[in-house]
Formats: sequence, C-alpha cells, structure tokens
Amino acid sequence: MYKTLLPLLFMGVAGLAEAATVVKPVPYEIDGEPFEGLLIYDDAVTTPRPGLLVVPNWLGVNEDSAKKAARAAGDKYVVFMADMYGKAVRPSNPAEAQAAAGAVRADRALMRKRAQAAVDVLKAQGGQVALDGDKLGAIGFCFGGGTILELARSGAPLKGFVSFHGNLDTPNPADAKNIKAPVLVLHGADDPAVPPEQVEAFIAEMKAAKTDWQLVSYGGAVHSFTNPVANVPERNEYHPVVAKRAFEAMNDLFDEVFAAE
Amino acid sequence: MYKTLLPLLFMGVAGLAEAATVVKPVPYEIDGEPFEGLLIYDDAVTTPRPGLLVVPNWLGVNEDSAKKAARAAGDKYVVFMADMYGKAVRPSNPAEAQAAAGAVRADRALMRKRAQAAVDVLKAQGGQVALDGDKLGAIGFCFGGGTILELARSGAPLKGFVSFHGNLDTPNPADAKNIKAPVLVLHGADDPAVPPEQVEAFIAEMKAAKTDWQLVSYGGAVHSFTNPVANVPERNEYHPVVAKRAFEAMNDLFDEVFAAE
Repeated sequence: MYKTLLPLLFMGVAGLAEAATVVKPVPYEIDGEPFEGLLIYDDAVTTPRPGLLVVPNWLGVNEDSAKKAARAAGDKYVVFMADMYGKAVRPSNPAEAQAAAGAVRADRALMRKRAQAAVDVLKAQGGQVALDGDKLGAIGFCFGGGTILELARSGAPLKGFVSFHGNLDTPNPADAKNIKAPVLVLHGADDPAVPPEQVEAFIAEMKAAKTDWQLVSYGGAVHSFTNPVANVPERNEYHPVVAKRAFEAMNDLFDEVFAAE
Repeated sequence: MYKTLLPLLFMGVAGLAEAATVVKPVPYEIDGEPFEGLLIYDDAVTTPRPGLLVVPNWLGVNEDSAKKAARAAGDKYVVFMADMYGKAVRPSNPAEAQAAAGAVRADRALMRKRAQAAVDVLKAQGGQVALDGDKLGAIGFCFGGGTILELARSGAPLKGFVSFHGNLDTPNPADAKNIKAPVLVLHGADDPAVPPEQVEAFIAEMKAAKTDWQLVSYGGAVHSFTNPVANVPERNEYHPVVAKRAFEAMNDLFDEVFAAE
C-alpha cells in the first residue's frame, strides 16, 4: 500500500529529493484490536536522534498525512504516525473523517489511550532505527493537534508538544496542571474552526495551570495552513509561507528542549 | 563614554566572548538638533550583512540597551541604535524615561521622523562597515517596539519589523495599510503594560489592513522579558528562556525576508 508513497514523497516534499526517507507501516494492537501507524525517518542518519509522535488530521493515516509527517521528520527526527481509529477505519472523505474523529473527540479517555499507545510504539522502535528514546515529543495537525494537547493534559512524560492549527478545546481544562513540558500552539488567526473564544479559553486554561506555553497567531492563515491539498477558500487553505514559519517554530522548540537534556 | 561598555559586553552577553563587537557613538542631526546613536557590529565579519535599526526602551541609549542590541546584532547584523530624544536627553530613572518617551509617544509624526532619521543614519554606514544597505529591518523593545510599529505604519521601505514586549496602540490604525513588510510581535502574555484589549485592537488593525503579521504570546512572561536588569515581579521581569525564544523568532523572520532578496 505504501510502496507508491515513496516516489510521491520524493517529488512532493522540499528537501527530500536526495534523502533516503523510509515510510514503513507498523501494526500494533490496543486491547486486542488492530491498529497500523507509519514509521517515517531518513535512514541515512545513523546516530540516534529524537522521536516525534505525529497525530494526523481527521483523515488519519494516508499518503497526504505521511508527506507532511516526512516534512516534519526531515533528517532530525524519527516520526511515528499514530493510527487513532484502528486499522479498519480509513476515512476517504470529510463526512467519514468527521464521524471517525468525532467519536474519538467525544471520548477523551479513549483519545488519550490511543495517543499513548502510539507513543509506546514509537519508543519501541529504538531497537530498529537510530532513535534516542529519551528525547520524545509530540506534534499534531487539526484534530491531531487537539489530540496531542489532550495527551499533554494526561501528564505524558514527553519533552514538548506542538499543535498545528489544532482544536484547543477540552472538557478537562483542570488537567492542564499535569502538563510536563512546553506547549507550542501554531494558530491561523483567521481559522474559523478555532475561533477567538476557543483561543481565549485555552490561554486562560494554560495561565491557570502555569504551564510553559506559547501561542503563535499567524495573520492571513485559516485552518489546515500546512496542508498542501487544502483548498477551501477562507476555511481550509494551504499557506506555504506560514507553513514554513510554523515548521521552523516547531524546530526551534524541539532544538531547545532536546538540547536541554 | 562608551569605552567602558566593551568589557561589559564581553562579560555580559552570551556568545560574545570571542566576538570583536564594536560599539561606536554616531552623532547626527535632525532639523539642526544634535542626536547621538550607537553603531554596533562584529568587526570580524567582512562580507556585507543586513542592517537592523534598534529602537531601545524608554531609557534610551545607554549601556543596558547597547548590550541588548549587541545580542540582537551577533555576527549576523549591523545594528544602529536610534536616539529618540536628542543628545541632551538621557533619562536616568523611570520618571525621566516616562517624560521623555511620553513626549514622543504623544507626537506620532515626530516619532516617525526620528525613527526614519535613524534608518537614514544606518543606511549611510555602508561606506564604513560591511553592511548590505538593501537588507534593512527594524526592531524595538517596549517603547521602542511601539516606535518601530509606528515606523512600519509610515510606509518605511524596510524588509521586516519586530517588536519585543512593545506597546501596540496607535492613534493611526488606518495607516496599517501602508505597511510594506512582515510584522512580528513578541508579546508577554501576562504583560500588564500591554493588556489583552490592546492586543485585540492591534490584531483587528492588522486584519483590516491585510498585513503580513504574526503575534507570539509567551506564557509566564510580563513586560521587559528580554531585559536582564528588569526585576519588578509581575510587571517588568527578565525571562531568559522566553528572551532566547524571542531572539530566535526574530532571527527566523529576518532569515526569511533577507534570504528572499
């Protein structure tokens, strides 16, 4: 299934033309149910490097999300992309994605459990790839951004959490006190899916918990600004300049937290 | 007067231990009145590099502001620090600073004129230092952040504008349409001097003008977070982690805009 992904990656992701990017399906189980995520890394790198959990947008594990994860990985990180729905669920359109994501969003314990299971899978790759398992962070896009914030609220012992145009709401704001590492929110200032009142509530939550947090508002950006295939004007739109800024901000944070080890 | 500054710089600014940082007073005139700013650069660099106008906080041109400007300059930029008050005015305490800054803040035409005069002085240094005069940006701290935003609103043809814990208010919001380059605001989320309503008004101003803007809110940071001598709890406090993040964000923006030339 992912054989076809590699040439696409080589064409579509800047900087990958000469990189030996590996995209490898990794099956795993949660409570006996089958899941399948993707391990993504540059196999030209042989010294152990930090690992990032990537939670994709509501469409889940697919070629587009793998390309974006490969961009995040570069030659700096080993990435494991979580399967948040189970192997049998692969949404092929927004309606299916909304149903799948909605079910997880409505059950935050389940959301946390599935995200944590994916962290465990990432950690377990240390025997096979050049991964420094003491340096792990999490990033997510849209639905996935909301997911990694919920993972942070669960007290997961990662070193940093970065949300790209993610949902910021939670039924568990008091759990922000459990957050163990810096949180960076990369937000499109015109994102209709994450309106100002949601941003304000999130800031209040972070302030109340005295979390180490940062929120970047990007002018002119709406939802999905990192997603090259997003093309719904004023709602979901790729913004290449802002996407580049956002990935740089992510790298700055992880450079900081991983260097501090 | 600034002879004493060099050893302080060498001791106080990270990364400068081996750099040959020059801090040179530069006299100039505006409408026949004497002003004196500081030219600051690493003279080990011989290839032309971009230039940054630096507008200091309300205390104006002094050793503390020179140290911070030297941190911004590193070996990447030639910095010229503006004298916003005239050579005879060197505030030595907050009351004097408030009076001096207040007079300039109350006269935005004067503020713009003095900031632009300093840009012209920076530009004129190209004959003497390794400066690429086509690559100029502006940064400012506190009062100086408010000043460079006003300079941006005047339509100044610089390549980027970065405000560190600056005031965001203006009597001229409609002038935002004149802004010619990306604006980056680095804001302490708990800054009592720049309250949320001022932030909201600024965002509305930028949105209305369709400016290229970014605003970073830093959790746990108040006013003056880049200033090592700021020590008034919950009002003006140095925050070394946030300061480092903010200077990195500045560098990211200037790397982007100067590379695009």
